[in-house]
Amino acid sequence: MIIVGEKINTSLKGVKEAVKSRDVAFIQQRAVEQDKNGADYIDVNCGTLVNEEVEALPWLVETVQQVVDKPCCIDSPNPAAIEAALKVHKGKAMINSITAEKSRYDKIVPLVKAYKSNVVALTMNDESGIPEDTETRVAIGKNLIDRLSKDGVPIEDIYIDPLIQPISTSSNMGIVALDSIKGIKEAYPEIHFMCGLSNISFGLPKRGLLNYTFLVLCMMAGLDGAILDPGNKQMMAMIVAAEALLNKDQFTMNYLKAFRAGLLEV
Amino acid sequence: MIIVGEKINTSLKGVKEAVKSRDVAFIQQRAVEQDKNGADYIDVNCGTLVNEEVEALPWLVETVQQVVDKPCCIDSPNPAAIEAALKVHKGKAMINSITAEKSRYDKIVPLVKAYKSNVVALTMNDESGIPEDTETRVAIGKNLIDRLSKDGVPIEDIYIDPLIQPISTSSNMGIVALDSIKGIKEAYPEIHFMCGLSNISFGLPKRGLLNYTFLVLCMMAGLDGAILDPGNKQMMAMIVAAEALLNKDQFTMNYLKAFRAGLLEV
Repeated sequence: MIIVGEKINTSLKGVKEAVKSRDVAFIQQRAVEQDKNGADYIDVNCGTLVNEEVEALPWLVETVQQVVDKPCCIDSPNPAAIEAALKVHKGKAMINSITAEKSRYDKIVPLVKAYKSNVVALTMNDESGIPEDTETRVAIGKNLIDRLSKDGVPIEDIYIDPLIQPISTSSNMGIVALDSIKGIKEAYPEIHFMCGLSNISFGLPKRGLLNYTFLVLCMMAGLDGAILDPGNKQMMAMIVAAEALLNKDQFTMNYLKAFRAGLLEV
Repeated sequence: MIIVGEKINTSLKGVKEAVKSRDVAFIQQRAVEQDKNGADYIDVNCGTLVNEEVEALPWLVETVQQVVDKPCCIDSPNPAAIEAALKVHKGKAMINSITAEKSRYDKIVPLVKAYKSNVVALTMNDESGIPEDTETRVAIGKNLIDRLSKDGVPIEDIYIDPLIQPISTSSNMGIVALDSIKGIKEAYPEIHFMCGLSNISFGLPKRGLLNYTFLVLCMMAGLDGAILDPGNKQMMAMIVAAEALLNKDQFTMNYLKAFRAGLLEV
C-alpha cells in the first residue's frame, strides 16, 4: 500500500493556526511523526486558507522536506498554488487532484508533465457533483486514464480516486466504490489508486470500525493507496495483515517484520 | 452471516473433561453464552473422543437444547454418531460434514434427506488431502452441489466449506480460498458457505488480527457463514460493519441496533 499521511491539513484542529503563524515546529513534528509511522507521502493541504494558498503551500512543502526525506502530496485545486509548491519540492511529488473538468485538467496536466509528478485523478466530471452509479465512475476513470496517457503522463504516475461517499446517505455507496475500483482495475491492471476512506462512515457512530473494515474490502477490490493517519495503529496493522492474506507479502516476511517491530500490537 | 458457535468441541481446553464426566452445567453455560452472543447454530463436536462419539454426541445435543432454543451443528465424520444425534435433535440441524468421497457421501446423505437437515460439504475428494489449487476446489464444490441437488437435497440446505489452509505454508492460500468462494458463488449465486477461518493464521503470530481481517475478505468474496467464537467481540463487530458496507443491511439498521446494544465497543 502507498500511504499518504493526512495530518497536515488546515481543516484539522490546530493546523490552520500553525500554518497562519508559520509554526515550523508544529508542522515538522507532524511530518516526522507520519514519516516514522510509515507514510510514503506527506500530504500538505491548506485549502481552508483559500486566499493564502499560493504562499502557504510552498512554505508547507519546504518546512516538511527540511526534516523528512519523503515526497509530498500537494493537495489543492489551485493551479497557481500547486505550481508554487512544485517549484520548491524535492523529488517526485504527487498532485492531488485533477478531474475531467476541462479548465482544471488543462491547467494542471502541464504541471504534472513539466515536473514529472504523480497525479490523482478524481472520477468526476466537475465540481458540481459525483456520479452516483458505478458505470459512470468507471467510464470517467477510464476516460481520464486514456486522456492522461495520450497527453504523455506515464500510467504508473496516475492514481485514480474512486470518490468514497457515505453509506448513511445511500446503502449501496460501499458497493459502488468497490465496484468502481474493480471495474477500473480490470480495464487497467497496472493503474494505481489513491483515496480517503473516512467519508464512507460519515453520519454513523463508531466510524473507525467502519473505516478500517472498508479499507480491507477496498484492498480486495484492488485499492493500493490511501490517504490516512499512519498513526492509526489498528488500520496500519490491518493493511499489513491484508497484504499477507492477499499474497502481496512473499513468505509473510513483512508481516513478521511488523510483528517484531511491535506494529501489530492492536 | 450465519454464525456457528465453535466453543463446544472436545479439542478445546476443558471440554473433553466436561463431556467425559457428563458435566451438564459446563456444557449448558457454553451453549447459553454463545446463544446470547449471537450464534445461529451451536456446534457440537466430540471428535477427539473417537470411540465414545455415538453416546457423547446425542448427549451433547440434548444437553445444549435443554437450555437453548437454537439448532445444533452436528460436527462429526461418523455416520452412526450423526444419526444418534439427529434422533434427539429438535428443529433443523446442520450436519458437518460430507466430502465427495463415496463411502462418506453414501452414508451421510440419506441422513440429510431423512432428517431434512442442512449439510456442510467440503471441497475435497477424500480424507487424504485437500487440493492446493482453486480450479480443483471449485470443480469439486460444483460437482457436490450437482450431486446433492440430484439426490434431492434443496440447494438452500447446502453449505460449501472452501477449506481454509495456512498462508504460513504457502503464501497464496488466502487467494486460493477467496477465489474458490468466488468461483462457486458465481456458478451458484444462491449457495451458502460455512467454514472455520482460524486455520488461515496457523503458525503465525497475532492470529486474531489475521483471522478477522480474513473474515472481511471472505465476506467480500461471498462467504455468508462461519464457525467461530461469537464471544469474539472484534470479529462480531466487523461482521456487522462489513454487512453494512456490502449493502446487506438496509439503512444500516442492524449496524445502528448493534451500536445501541453496545456490540460495537471494540
